[in-house]
Amino acid sequence: MGEKLGEGKTKEVFDMDEDHVLLKFKDSITAGDGLKKDEMEGKGILNAQTSAILFRLLEKEGIKTHYVGMKDERTMIVKKLSMIPVEVVARNIATGSIVKRLPIKEGEVFNPPIVEFFLKDDARHDPLLNYSHMEYFKLMNRKEANESEEIIKRAINVISDYIKKRGLILFDLKLEFGRIDGEMIVGDEISLDSMRVRSPNGDIYDKDLYRRGESLEKVKSRYQEFLRLISN
Amino acid sequence: MGEKLGEGKTKEVFDMDEDHVLLKFKDSITAGDGLKKDEMEGKGILNAQTSAILFRLLEKEGIKTHYVGMKDERTMIVKKLSMIPVEVVARNIATGSIVKRLPIKEGEVFNPPIVEFFLKDDARHDPLLNYSHMEYFKLMNRKEANESEEIIKRAINVISDYIKKRGLILFDLKLEFGRIDGEMIVGDEISLDSMRVRSPNGDIYDKDLYRRGESLEKVKSRYQEFLRLISN
Repeated sequence: MGEKLGEGKTKEVFDMDEDHVLLKFKDSITAGDGLKKDEMEGKGILNAQTSAILFRLLEKEGIKTHYVGMKDERTMIVKKLSMIPVEVVARNIATGSIVKRLPIKEGEVFNPPIVEFFLKDDARHDPLLNYSHMEYFKLMNRKEANESEEIIKRAINVISDYIKKRGLILFDLKLEFGRIDGEMIVGDEISLDSMRVRSPNGDIYDKDLYRRGESLEKVKSRYQEFLRLISN
Repeated sequence: MGEKLGEGKTKEVFDMDEDHVLLKFKDSITAGDGLKKDEMEGKGILNAQTSAILFRLLEKEGIKTHYVGMKDERTMIVKKLSMIPVEVVARNIATGSIVKRLPIKEGEVFNPPIVEFFLKDDARHDPLLNYSHMEYFKLMNRKEANESEEIIKRAINVISDYIKKRGLILFDLKLEFGRIDGEMIVGDEISLDSMRVRSPNGDIYDKDLYRRGESLEKVKSRYQEFLRLISN
């Protein structure tokens, strides 16, 4: 691989050519703004494969992503984006931080989905941003914020329908965006680290298992089962 | 006075006629979502008079408010609004909660002002809201949120210019809105409880004095001095 350009909590980025970089998915799993951290053998492969399937699904539905192809089982070839350090979250069903922050009960259904923007800033616990903050920080102007809201609303519908056919429920979805020539493109990953997936009887398939202290074996078997389900 | 319709931390509301209510400003002063509380003799009069002057100033500049006139020195006659339980905050200069939440330094200047919406919910410490939350809670639709942003940006400019001529600096301003026939109208009060005012050498004139533990005498003398300054 080319020169290492950067490394996050779960991925390394390597230079490829003028327009592409390689995303190598690591086996690390983290929670609580990186305070809790473990190695889960094979997790990088699972998340890379899951992300590849879901990026291809979005592309098929006309949503532009950075996905180009796979170099190996844990390394993705992606378009080089100028990434925006914001987590864009769409919620179909309430769980997690929103029920602590706002007068919203666990399990409340949002139709249309609620969309939120959070600054990627572990030290400040990823604070909520509004349009006015994003303009001040030069993260997104209002047009881009509106665009990313429209894109994530379409994406959560597409993925939700896809996994519903496989018997599961998508509670929420986090996307990160970057730009190519000023256009908003979905980047980063789409995996069980970045969305919440439940069965109708409440079985958890996503990283909340890890957040809640389940064994790495349990977490891994659910990540495997989910990948198997969406592979067909 | 007519029937008491309600009471908040610093004001009582009485029925007047079909289109009007009376706002009686109490002497109580509170901070920390009501956890800190005192009586400051004469404070209700000071805040009622300060608010009256600033409402008249906004009206003169074409910004619609609920202000009609004074019934007595601490009781304001106002139009009956359907109030929206949201605090709309505009910031010219960073201080207070924003420097704790976001990577923004005390004293940073915002041009244009940053505007934020907070849910009035003491138990949850007035959480930040975005447009998507306000639509879900049916507090404001996007058009109304945009309108209230435009109104508070004009209001902070008008009040800022007015007190600048009197040698003081407006750091930030909180407004609350209500509706008459679907139109957004400035309600509540505009006082040193709801804006931050400093002198060029850093003297504090607003409720931060009380938040920081200064004596009630000191707080009152600054509230008095400010009212005297804006009265001419």
